[in-house]
Amino acid sequence: MRNIKLIIAYDGTNYAGWQSQPISRKNSSKTKTIQKTIESILSRVLQEKVVLIASGRTDAGVHAHAQTANFKTHNSISLKKLKKALNGLLPEDIVVKSIASIRTDFHARFNCISKHYRYAILNRTYSDPFLRKYVYFYPFFLDVSTMKKEAKCLVGRHDFSCFQASDKIKKNAVREIKKVLVKRSNDFILIDVIADGFVYNMVRNIVGTLIEIGRGRFQKGFVRMLLSEKNRNLAGPTAPACGLMLWKVNYAKG
Amino acid sequence: MRNIKLIIAYDGTNYAGWQSQPISRKNSSKTKTIQKTIESILSRVLQEKVVLIASGRTDAGVHAHAQTANFKTHNSISLKKLKKALNGLLPEDIVVKSIASIRTDFHARFNCISKHYRYAILNRTYSDPFLRKYVYFYPFFLDVSTMKKEAKCLVGRHDFSCFQASDKIKKNAVREIKKVLVKRSNDFILIDVIADGFVYNMVRNIVGTLIEIGRGRFQKGFVRMLLSEKNRNLAGPTAPACGLMLWKVNYAKG
Repeated sequence: MRNIKLIIAYDGTNYAGWQSQPISRKNSSKTKTIQKTIESILSRVLQEKVVLIASGRTDAGVHAHAQTANFKTHNSISLKKLKKALNGLLPEDIVVKSIASIRTDFHARFNCISKHYRYAILNRTYSDPFLRKYVYFYPFFLDVSTMKKEAKCLVGRHDFSCFQASDKIKKNAVREIKKVLVKRSNDFILIDVIADGFVYNMVRNIVGTLIEIGRGRFQKGFVRMLLSEKNRNLAGPTAPACGLMLWKVNYAKG
Repeated sequence: MRNIKLIIAYDGTNYAGWQSQPISRKNSSKTKTIQKTIESILSRVLQEKVVLIASGRTDAGVHAHAQTANFKTHNSISLKKLKKALNGLLPEDIVVKSIASIRTDFHARFNCISKHYRYAILNRTYSDPFLRKYVYFYPFFLDVSTMKKEAKCLVGRHDFSCFQASDKIKKNAVREIKKVLVKRSNDFILIDVIADGFVYNMVRNIVGTLIEIGRGRFQKGFVRMLLSEKNRNLAGPTAPACGLMLWKVNYAKG
């Protein structure tokens, strides 16, 4: 039995997410999922039922620059041929960037040590017709330096209940944020969050809160208060899915 | 009477071009044009019939990073308000980047001294789900250094009949190419062409020919031969519209 690892990029615009979730089905008319789309093509090419395991789900409308997934197969097709077949058969909004054999006990979800999400805000008075589906267009002033300072308070091991989707409460919302980077790059504000795990909607809720801070509705010290209060109702709104991209999934070496 | 200049970006994917052309209507089921779309919104906002003059047409499916256009109006609305109204009412794939008053005799087409087009080729084994509509994905080897050398022969005043759409012959195909730049930037090959004017499909035919050169079908010296033969049938195929973008339109200062 071979274990094969894929690195996949996708434009999530027209999908209900990696895997459909009750919460996304409720808010969306989209029913296609990235997982089912790839699985059905894998099964067709390999002539056997395939289960594709990703590092984790991405929500409806969220994109991936590099999602990692693995699957097992009995088929002996060469990796080069398989990659070509997949990219030939997949819809244009899903692309297999790389394909490799991996040790049989590798599991894309259980072995993941951290994930890196990037949120992109286009912060100028007019939108961009080419990036409109991949950034959140926010035309008003944002004080990036205050956003940066507040974002720093997120780093470390915390109970992130306050950034959890209100209708999807998990018992344990303790996660470790290893790094948060807020930076302006020309007309864009990029918010990178690297953590060992994320509660549902965590990045989008963090971004929504940082935006409220940047526009002055929430004051300095707000994030610290939020983390200690653990109350979702105090945080900012959930930022739109289109600005979010799963940037990279990290695994222990070897 | 005010004369107003617009700089416009658009994703041409879903349009029959800036203005519909017999040739594009023939090959396309798209009937919307960029010009009509903007004109109808301008007329609605300004409450009078508006004629929008661009630096030139772009073909069906071709994009613009910065098209320049102008129109005259009796309406005294402020430029700031007008820009906001336009971007609020325009579809998401057309954006007004800037708006300014300009001397009454300015004419976006007649006063244009040169136009800069950029053609983007994604040259690697797999596509990009986010850029798929804005680049030409070409997965095979291209010898960029030979393409560069051949492209240099295009510079200068020549009869470009050989790069003219075969079903749209103009009597005078003499144009001056001021600059051609072919460069590799990571997985992309960018081809920039700046000229005082272009015959129909000129950049796409140049790119199609350079690709044939890059993959070795046409030999060194081919471009020079082509220019002297003036025979469209000898040139390469027309490269796809999606990779082409009107990058910038130049006017004399003052």
